[in-house]
Amino acid sequence: MADPRFYERSGPYTLSELVDISGSELLQKEHANDKIEDVAPLNKADSSHISFFDNKKYKNQFEQTNSGAVLVRKSFVDIAPEGTCLFVCDDPYRAYAKVAKAFYPQKHTLSYRANGPLIDPSAKIGVDSIVGPGTYIGPNVVIGDRCEIGPNSTIGRGVTIGDDTIITSNVTLGYCLIGSRVLINPGVRIGQDGFGYAMSPQGHESVPQLGRVIINDDVALGANTTIDRGSGPDTIVGAGTKIDNLVQIAHNVQIGKGCVITAQVGIAGSTKLGDFVVMGGQSGVAGHLEIGSGVQIAAQSGVIGNIAAGQVVGGYPAQPMKSWMKGAAILSMAVKKGRKTLEDK
Amino acid sequence: MADPRFYERSGPYTLSELVDISGSELLQKEHANDKIEDVAPLNKADSSHISFFDNKKYKNQFEQTNSGAVLVRKSFVDIAPEGTCLFVCDDPYRAYAKVAKAFYPQKHTLSYRANGPLIDPSAKIGVDSIVGPGTYIGPNVVIGDRCEIGPNSTIGRGVTIGDDTIITSNVTLGYCLIGSRVLINPGVRIGQDGFGYAMSPQGHESVPQLGRVIINDDVALGANTTIDRGSGPDTIVGAGTKIDNLVQIAHNVQIGKGCVITAQVGIAGSTKLGDFVVMGGQSGVAGHLEIGSGVQIAAQSGVIGNIAAGQVVGGYPAQPMKSWMKGAAILSMAVKKGRKTLEDK
Amino acid sequence: MADPRFYERSGPYTLSELVDISGSELLQKEHANDKIEDVAPLNKADSSHISFFDNKKYKNQFEQTNSGAVLVRKSFVDIAPEGTCLFVCDDPYRAYAKVAKAFYPQKHTLSYRANGPLIDPSAKIGVDSIVGPGTYIGPNVVIGDRCEIGPNSTIGRGVTIGDDTIITSNVTLGYCLIGSRVLINPGVRIGQDGFGYAMSPQGHESVPQLGRVIINDDVALGANTTIDRGSGPDTIVGAGTKIDNLVQIAHNVQIGKGCVITAQVGIAGSTKLGDFVVMGGQSGVAGHLEIGSGVQIAAQSGVIGNIAAGQVVGGYPAQPMKSWMKGAAILSMAVKKGRKTLEDK
Repeated sequence: MADPRFYERSGPYTLSELVDISGSELLQKEHANDKIEDVAPLNKADSSHISFFDNKKYKNQFEQTNSGAVLVRKSFVDIAPEGTCLFVCDDPYRAYAKVAKAFYPQKHTLSYRANGPLIDPSAKIGVDSIVGPGTYIGPNVVIGDRCEIGPNSTIGRGVTIGDDTIITSNVTLGYCLIGSRVLINPGVRIGQDGFGYAMSPQGHESVPQLGRVIINDDVALGANTTIDRGSGPDTIVGAGTKIDNLVQIAHNVQIGKGCVITAQVGIAGSTKLGDFVVMGGQSGVAGHLEIGSGVQIAAQSGVIGNIAAGQVVGGYPAQPMKSWMKGAAILSMAVKKGRKTLEDK
Repeated sequence: MADPRFYERSGPYTLSELVDISGSELLQKEHANDKIEDVAPLNKADSSHISFFDNKKYKNQFEQTNSGAVLVRKSFVDIAPEGTCLFVCDDPYRAYAKVAKAFYPQKHTLSYRANGPLIDPSAKIGVDSIVGPGTYIGPNVVIGDRCEIGPNSTIGRGVTIGDDTIITSNVTLGYCLIGSRVLINPGVRIGQDGFGYAMSPQGHESVPQLGRVIINDDVALGANTTIDRGSGPDTIVGAGTKIDNLVQIAHNVQIGKGCVITAQVGIAGSTKLGDFVVMGGQSGVAGHLEIGSGVQIAAQSGVIGNIAAGQVVGGYPAQPMKSWMKGAAILSMAVKKGRKTLEDK
Repeated sequence: MADPRFYERSGPYTLSELVDISGSELLQKEHANDKIEDVAPLNKADSSHISFFDNKKYKNQFEQTNSGAVLVRKSFVDIAPEGTCLFVCDDPYRAYAKVAKAFYPQKHTLSYRANGPLIDPSAKIGVDSIVGPGTYIGPNVVIGDRCEIGPNSTIGRGVTIGDDTIITSNVTLGYCLIGSRVLINPGVRIGQDGFGYAMSPQGHESVPQLGRVIINDDVALGANTTIDRGSGPDTIVGAGTKIDNLVQIAHNVQIGKGCVITAQVGIAGSTKLGDFVVMGGQSGVAGHLEIGSGVQIAAQSGVIGNIAAGQVVGGYPAQPMKSWMKGAAILSMAVKKGRKTLEDK
């Protein structure tokens, strides 16, 4: 399911071949000669795909998957949906990394050639668009009308950009689709490898990142902000969202419309923000969470659980703003009164 | 008042035209044919300018402004200085954004031409200065003597640089004046759009950022640090101040002389630091504050109020260092004693 | 002891000359005509070197140094090892800065020539390696086989890179040795000046940074991450360590094998991490600390003391995870019960 503008696929592989590739045990040996075409996440896969299940948060998706085959721990075999072939292994994420590398064996970002031209002849650049000196435009890039691409930027193969978008200087874009009227400030990095590793004392195995980044219309991105591409799903920034400088958006994050993300915020992998969420400077949200629409998160707060729409939260762990402020006030009062311990009066 | 090296102005506009542009109501209709030449902040404006008043912190400036016209909410009409024309509106900041766009309609950073030379013929480069391969130098840039500009950097039109300054590689400079003996490490971004939006559920309207960045003599800036240009006033870094890597300096911030700003600090918009302020790593200061000279701010602290000169503060909200440490000690003691609640003995 | 691939040394200087350069008083005047060849840290120096001692944490190293001469405060003269010449001064770090500048007077990064070629003829590029358009490769760079260097990157003189390493686009490398199978994402900055200043109200004197950065095999570095070169010792990242986006690694930091450093972490100067340390997002470690192998540090935590191997810590100041969570729970309970002060029941 990886976008062919960015990824070249190998295979198909038989289940039997995938046993060797993944180092797993196939439970349904009668299907050893069936063929698998591609990798896909549990909730997007069909019978031609292989998926993995490793994080209990996604148990629901596993129980309902249409995937032809799933890499899974022994302990979850019982809740597998009928008709799905199971590859039992100790570390499904690591096994998936090996399988995904078999389907997508290409080198990282080979979208240029030594001594090649700065603008690839296959790139399409719209009417009244301008490209600054020193900027590299890769194969099959499509740029809309009235765009401005500054000097010394790098636009990797297959990237598409809408109309009236400004990409400033020293920017790197790869594996992404950019909307119209977007502003991308200097030093922004979009589409690089997400931080996906199957970790172990034997070494951290990198997991192929096969998704894209989708930047919708009217988004603005601050200087030196980084947005990693999805691991399979896409990383998405909704229309009209404004993101400040030095912000980190991890793989698979989905940000809604009209959000305001101020400087040095970090959003960890696979977290979803609703619309019009506001995050104060240097705040962070842990991975795999859901933050409802209209939520406001105070500066420097750390969010480690889901937050319902409309809440205003602060502190670490982030809690309703009033509770957090009261806690600080209680402690401050104890200090003023010269307490050495809590019960010392 | 925007520096003509960086900005081209349109207009003038009559008050009547500005009614249409801003969507506001002019109270002094007898002045409908008067002309306004430019936008300016309340404390810098004269009778040829239009300003806006939206943040109560600047009430004083509004009461004393010499501005010819001010965009203002109905509720503040009574405290307006005599002789100032008032444009009443619900969202003065949004109305100002529209007015500023009328006066400064130019595209973002069009300081280069497609297929143009890497070094614009109008740029002046001093004696014994060197420019690395791949670096773009825009129109009317002025570089002093004995400077070193590394490879693959981008120096936008009108930028001026003093003597003996080192700009390393992959740097982006725009809308800025750089002093002598300055060191700018790789990946620094200076002069991009500040994070200025008139926010609303109907969409966040970008506010033209019409100021500059002033980097005084003997400043050092760490790798991938970002300094946004002012919105009208300038963003200023005082002489001899040393700034570490990945620091965020927002628009209109003024930093005094000899400050030491360590890595990953964030300083929000319009905040002023005195001289010899020291900020520990990952600390932050909220916007529109005044931090006195000699203040020391502990690592990871969050400052949300003014701080008098010479104070040493820590925690979030930042408080005198001793109070903060005592609070932590009291809580720690309660934990050691196995309390489940504060009154549980 | 500075690597001649990156630094050109002047001298030698007699002790008498060094008195003038450093503004110090030589106690052993009978050695005034002895010669010193180079600067070196206390624990690496021999009789041909001059060192400085300014931080009590390194008292042990001072007592055992083999250095020919040491810049030192008067109060530590008594514990000096026999046979070491002593330069007494009020500010040994500032005096060292002057001495180091005398031995290494060269300009910052002059590894390119105006209008020079993008790839220096003295650079060696291995078999099946590719260099993207717009990338600058400096003198005496050595790149291994099957490497990929993306567009618009800057590789400074003397940098060496192993086999099968991917350097993406808009990267800056200087003063570093990079292993094999390393992945360096866009916007990474390696090898710039560390944040080393002898601070004082008379101005902060920059201290020459004479070390390198060593990136071992199988390391991955996230987008816009910054790693400063050592001040004399090297900054080191161990084999198989994975570092996420926007991370700050200060000078002289040593990171062990297989560590996992997530986004926006900061590690201050001269701190050592063991193997397989895990740091959560936006956490920080202060300078000159030792973090044992297998330590896990929660997101947004601030570590200000040494941590023994295997500990799991959180909060600021970082403490055992359980204590930190209990403290938060106690405070939260007080808020829920509506306390205004700690003793209010």
